[in-house]
Amino acid sequence: MKNKLGKQTFLYPLKPRIVGAYSIVGEKEGKGPMAKWFDMILEDDTFGEKTWEKSETKMLKQAILQALQKSGRDKEAIDAVLCGDLINQLMSSSFMARDLSIPFLGLYGACSTMTEAMILGSLMIDGGYASNVIVGASSHYCTAERQFRMPLEHGNQRPPSAQWTATAAAAMVLSEFDKGDAVVTQGQSMPQGQYVKELYITHATVGKIIDTGMKDVNQMGAAMAPAAVDTIIRHLTDTGREPGYYDLILTGDLGLIGKEIALDLLSGAGVEIADVFKDCGAMMYVKKQDTHSGGSGCGCSASIFSGYVYREMRLGKIKNALLISTGALLSTISSQQGESVPGIAHAVAVTTEGVK
Amino acid sequence: MKNKLGKQTFLYPLKPRIVGAYSIVGEKEGKGPMAKWFDMILEDDTFGEKTWEKSETKMLKQAILQALQKSGRDKEAIDAVLCGDLINQLMSSSFMARDLSIPFLGLYGACSTMTEAMILGSLMIDGGYASNVIVGASSHYCTAERQFRMPLEHGNQRPPSAQWTATAAAAMVLSEFDKGDAVVTQGQSMPQGQYVKELYITHATVGKIIDTGMKDVNQMGAAMAPAAVDTIIRHLTDTGREPGYYDLILTGDLGLIGKEIALDLLSGAGVEIADVFKDCGAMMYVKKQDTHSGGSGCGCSASIFSGYVYREMRLGKIKNALLISTGALLSTISSQQGESVPGIAHAVAVTTEGVK
Repeated sequence: MKNKLGKQTFLYPLKPRIVGAYSIVGEKEGKGPMAKWFDMILEDDTFGEKTWEKSETKMLKQAILQALQKSGRDKEAIDAVLCGDLINQLMSSSFMARDLSIPFLGLYGACSTMTEAMILGSLMIDGGYASNVIVGASSHYCTAERQFRMPLEHGNQRPPSAQWTATAAAAMVLSEFDKGDAVVTQGQSMPQGQYVKELYITHATVGKIIDTGMKDVNQMGAAMAPAAVDTIIRHLTDTGREPGYYDLILTGDLGLIGKEIALDLLSGAGVEIADVFKDCGAMMYVKKQDTHSGGSGCGCSASIFSGYVYREMRLGKIKNALLISTGALLSTISSQQGESVPGIAHAVAVTTEGVK
Repeated sequence: MKNKLGKQTFLYPLKPRIVGAYSIVGEKEGKGPMAKWFDMILEDDTFGEKTWEKSETKMLKQAILQALQKSGRDKEAIDAVLCGDLINQLMSSSFMARDLSIPFLGLYGACSTMTEAMILGSLMIDGGYASNVIVGASSHYCTAERQFRMPLEHGNQRPPSAQWTATAAAAMVLSEFDKGDAVVTQGQSMPQGQYVKELYITHATVGKIIDTGMKDVNQMGAAMAPAAVDTIIRHLTDTGREPGYYDLILTGDLGLIGKEIALDLLSGAGVEIADVFKDCGAMMYVKKQDTHSGGSGCGCSASIFSGYVYREMRLGKIKNALLISTGALLSTISSQQGESVPGIAHAVAVTTEGVK
């Protein structure tokens, strides 16, 4: 186990690079505070399709193909696509990938899916099994509402603790390290001269399922916060890093309430991360957008990382980031059968520093 | 890419070992021709639980914990659990894993899930990221029927091309190669002196999604056969092997009809595998059990490989096996929206030979 640190953390000695990223969001997300970081904002969340599911599928495909284009690579150079979404049987991912003709692996980690894909994609590259891998994830407010909650036409009320499933898809191309190639890619995908830094994935911490017995399906942040805390502490312990090592510790979608719970739990454990802590769910919308506790969905942390964080890192404004996407592993039938909501969180460490 | 062969095949130079396997099946599967190979046969498919979903969850947990016990390893030695099932949002896998306290990665490949888990688990071990990994998959006739088809109470008729979702769960422990340990494990997990051989995973071929436009959800075998054929041909091309290299080429669950289609398609492509070709779906039941075209479900190929193939290989009766689990990546909503059925198939090569 030459590439494992501590109990749950993978070390990627070859530091897979992120060589292309693309994010596409819906109308509401395009009116939020993160709008300027996304590559594409839909004017109409149907994206010209007849069903919400087909719209989400098209969004994910757009993200995958555009991330590929930004990477400067041909489709034939891609060894595998790893992605997932929230729709039953991963409909968006499977139907997105059916015309790609690229080896496909479907993943399900609820809203933690993007980090799960990054972890496994990085393994493939770091281990010498692949040169280029695409990772992606998507969610859509309208597909999630009708599958998990109520028909949209019902217009049901939502409690203040509820989160809003983001209409968002994102993808990234991970690639083996090659310094010469890095310059070419930078020129092709980011013509702006200010994008001077390259992103490298160095570590990943695979999370355990944490279930505190919480049964309120309108309290996803509370269900996921203990998993995020467990993974953050485990990551810091395994790597021997202090929270201050990171310029940004970014959880997936704990939302406004879950973020506070996570901070409290971490503080109680003697881990102070407030100075560098952000949460994608808390960042996606502003209060007047009526999304209550904030954003959620696979696409939430996927699009904010692929949009905001990716660009800020390329600009050299963030040097070390830890992304911890969080997932609530419930289903309608588990809730109907009186079950609680298991949470999970996986962490990925990304840096622009210290790579030859 | 030192560990990739051809276009789609991973090479595992360190040859991860299968050091424990366990299969548990339902009452009907226990009356079929494969019965003697399973570790446990339920007398009652509820397994003492109040719901079918909880029964499936319990079956998968039983498989995971018993495979672990057979491996002679402690839970603390397991670096990750990789598994999946057919229930929405992977309910069986997530709820199974919530008490395990082992890092968890959820996978969805429909009935191809077991090979997907074996591929990714082997990557972790071969790449030096893990010492021991558990892979698993499950399905249950009653959870699948009510989710994908009709309420059981409806007693609807099934066309002759339909397959029967197997009530079955299975798990295997994959481990890094260590000759000294191999002997100990063999003694602990298989006290019978005749289990003289060790199993090693040497290659994996990750499949592409193949969608021929077939829309009949009662023709899963026909939907998956082209994907199986594509992956088999790709595997043979990438590895430079002839079909006769394998003592057994075992597809997941094409069933009686899909198996014939696959043989026809392969024959048309000049690839003759009939001498060594079997299909788990075609093996699981006999005609009088009224399962029409045969078995299906994640648990079908998982339990037949973990039961029959694992034992036959340990006995030295099969030296080289290629398992190609096949998945139909549809959902109820994709069918309702008029979509066709995308198929996928992943292959894993297992040997008892040529390892020092």
